[in-house]
Amino acid sequence: MSKKQRQMALGAMMYFPAGEHISSWRHPESDAAGLMDFNYYKHIAQTAERGKFDMFFYADELYVWDRFESGVAQSNSIRPEPFTLLSALAAVTSRIGLAATVSTTYNEPYHIARKLATLDHLSGGRAGWNIVTSQTDEEARNFGLEQHPQHKDRYGRAREFVDVTQGLWDSWDDDALLFDKARGNFADPSKLHTLHHKSANFAVRGPLNVSRPPQGYPVLIQAGASEAGKELAAASAEVVFAPGSAFGPFGTVEDGKALYDDIKDRMAKYGRSRDDLKILPGVLPIIGRTEEEAKERLDAVNELTPERLGLDLLSHYLGRDISNYPLDEPLPYVPQLEGFNQSKSNLTRILQLLEREALTIRQLYKRVNSRGIAGTPTQIADQLEAWFLAGAADGFNVMFPHLPGGLDDFVDLVVPELQRRGLYRLDYTGATLRDHLGLKRPESRYANVQSQTKR
Amino acid sequence: MSKKQRQMALGAMMYFPAGEHISSWRHPESDAAGLMDFNYYKHIAQTAERGKFDMFFYADELYVWDRFESGVAQSNSIRPEPFTLLSALAAVTSRIGLAATVSTTYNEPYHIARKLATLDHLSGGRAGWNIVTSQTDEEARNFGLEQHPQHKDRYGRAREFVDVTQGLWDSWDDDALLFDKARGNFADPSKLHTLHHKSANFAVRGPLNVSRPPQGYPVLIQAGASEAGKELAAASAEVVFAPGSAFGPFGTVEDGKALYDDIKDRMAKYGRSRDDLKILPGVLPIIGRTEEEAKERLDAVNELTPERLGLDLLSHYLGRDISNYPLDEPLPYVPQLEGFNQSKSNLTRILQLLEREALTIRQLYKRVNSRGIAGTPTQIADQLEAWFLAGAADGFNVMFPHLPGGLDDFVDLVVPELQRRGLYRLDYTGATLRDHLGLKRPESRYANVQSQTKR
Repeated sequence: MSKKQRQMALGAMMYFPAGEHISSWRHPESDAAGLMDFNYYKHIAQTAERGKFDMFFYADELYVWDRFESGVAQSNSIRPEPFTLLSALAAVTSRIGLAATVSTTYNEPYHIARKLATLDHLSGGRAGWNIVTSQTDEEARNFGLEQHPQHKDRYGRAREFVDVTQGLWDSWDDDALLFDKARGNFADPSKLHTLHHKSANFAVRGPLNVSRPPQGYPVLIQAGASEAGKELAAASAEVVFAPGSAFGPFGTVEDGKALYDDIKDRMAKYGRSRDDLKILPGVLPIIGRTEEEAKERLDAVNELTPERLGLDLLSHYLGRDISNYPLDEPLPYVPQLEGFNQSKSNLTRILQLLEREALTIRQLYKRVNSRGIAGTPTQIADQLEAWFLAGAADGFNVMFPHLPGGLDDFVDLVVPELQRRGLYRLDYTGATLRDHLGLKRPESRYANVQSQTKR
Repeated sequence: MSKKQRQMALGAMMYFPAGEHISSWRHPESDAAGLMDFNYYKHIAQTAERGKFDMFFYADELYVWDRFESGVAQSNSIRPEPFTLLSALAAVTSRIGLAATVSTTYNEPYHIARKLATLDHLSGGRAGWNIVTSQTDEEARNFGLEQHPQHKDRYGRAREFVDVTQGLWDSWDDDALLFDKARGNFADPSKLHTLHHKSANFAVRGPLNVSRPPQGYPVLIQAGASEAGKELAAASAEVVFAPGSAFGPFGTVEDGKALYDDIKDRMAKYGRSRDDLKILPGVLPIIGRTEEEAKERLDAVNELTPERLGLDLLSHYLGRDISNYPLDEPLPYVPQLEGFNQSKSNLTRILQLLEREALTIRQLYKRVNSRGIAGTPTQIADQLEAWFLAGAADGFNVMFPHLPGGLDDFVDLVVPELQRRGLYRLDYTGATLRDHLGLKRPESRYANVQSQTKR
């Protein structure tokens, strides 16, 4: 193994607490009754750390999916709140990064800047933030609105939210705190900056009452594959996940490389180098000792979702109840992306599926709910290696068909294979999430102002 | 020691991270540079648990106190965010309750209900919530407002905020989750309740995406000593702290008993029993091996605050800059409680001090910043016992002149004395914060509705 070999980054994704699927909780090996028990999460985070993952990545949403009765009766509709979960996990891990989804639509920048900064401090520089704009009217109604704000308004607010949050993180210069007991000087007031941000979206005076995070800023993660999402990622994200993964088979290396280049090519105009952003496509490996066993496992996972729930989930993605249409005929209308106000990424992938194949509704809902790639550890490693070496990925955001077993399998069987090939670290070499990912620690926005002042 | 002996409850308070005083960070034994380091808090929480405290109680505010330059230069103006801190502490403790201050003025009920419910789950039923309405214009300006809302509006919002939060905690009945893998039933939809709350303050549909907390509701704590605060406490609080403590000497047992009875007498009209609320006056013990040593230690603590900072803090409490008045004359005006929109409790105590004694400004700022009672362990225990047995307290919220040393002293010297007297537990007998405090687990608001339906 060459020391110069570029190494892949790996995230361990928890979408639903029991695994990637809405029905992962039904898997015979899942610990469905443990989903509010800290020991369940502790085992998973410690296993991911044993597997030297760059980060544990926890998804979130701000509502119970009760649009359809199946959502309450059959899906996994409870989940711990991310900050509360991640900081508890910080106390029982020492190296792995800890990232979570936090909405910019239904939060205040001061609170989020403060929580992320605190998590970064308490974890010794291991915090990451998956910046999302939320997706549903149900969420809006938990926060005083009738309807989810429009896509472009949400993205405008998201961009500004991140800017305000970064401004708050820069409130205290890295060397502002003195702790000089003899002189009674806690801090140097000339190294404290008040933001005074005012716009239609936010009025935030600052400063933040938490010192600058160990990482400067926690790592900024972004998922969107929409045009606005790609642009936001190129402008400010440090990790992008999901493209080329969410539905159906893993996609082709060529698709992956096209998307990879599309996003990275946009970075120059924001003055950013291609290395400042890591693209980690999502992959859901279903691992078997033989290819046959892996395929049986994939089938078993796909069978977990009851028909009604699968159809309701498709209705949700389409933003229209399709349960009364004949199951064995195609959708009787063409979904329109224009003006659609839930996840455009999900709808785009459905449109791509329909363009390529004439699927009936029954086939479509099954395809939408089947995301795994089945294979032996060697076959899985082959695919990851191919994508990585072709320049279609800087690493992967790994999803699991059920937890904790799916993660155990990956750590015990695939990680050693990647390590043998020299593609993946044998151990952590740094302390922070930025260290793991090879990302620079950002300077404060006031850094140059200061050095000018000092001259 | 009789088994029937009523036992006192103890909270371990952290106002500033380094201790109770704005200058505690300067104490020779304080760990000022550790204030964003998790190990500092871990040691303190574990020490409090070793001392069998009912709870670790963490105060909070949502701004940097930069109204005066001394606030930035000389005071301890950074602090970890409470949820992030408490849930990390939940992972390294097993019995002690974990409570924090969370503002109802600058938060959304859905987020707070969710975070507290998650903390309660991950800690196995140890969460507590100190309900406050915040105090300053500086906080308002971090959340899109120019001025802090008026006292009565804040209390109206606070009452409603708690009601909405409790409604969200009741979203799922205690037995709503089925985890029935064979039938595919995750939950019983008839046991999920949607709040549909709408008012001028909040529109919150619900339900909450976290199951009902282990304690039913986390323990509700309240500090206010204003009329509105006492009424809110009598109506809904389960722990009241602070009255009779915040300034100057500990106050008389008679004062304490009058306040105790005043609050408890108001409970009947809300259909509550006196045992449903525990009143824990604040006490700041300065412990010495001899009385003389204790007094020397108290003087040393009081000397930590520089004059300018002490005066600025008094200006803050008065809501008016008094730094240009002659220091050795009395305040040239009488502060008015009417229309005052910061902490009425603080101003009330200043008015009480001025009524009793003709203090100069210099004397006043020193008295305001001197809160400790100095004594040997036996003397401290005598005072706590006297208050407890006289019916002026159900226990105490213990504050510390510096951390972690002040807590170490209390746990090593005063706790054993209280235990010898049979006034305090030798070990935890229950698992949850409610168990420690002897508080009932509240039923869901839907509990009776259901049992009627079932008949």
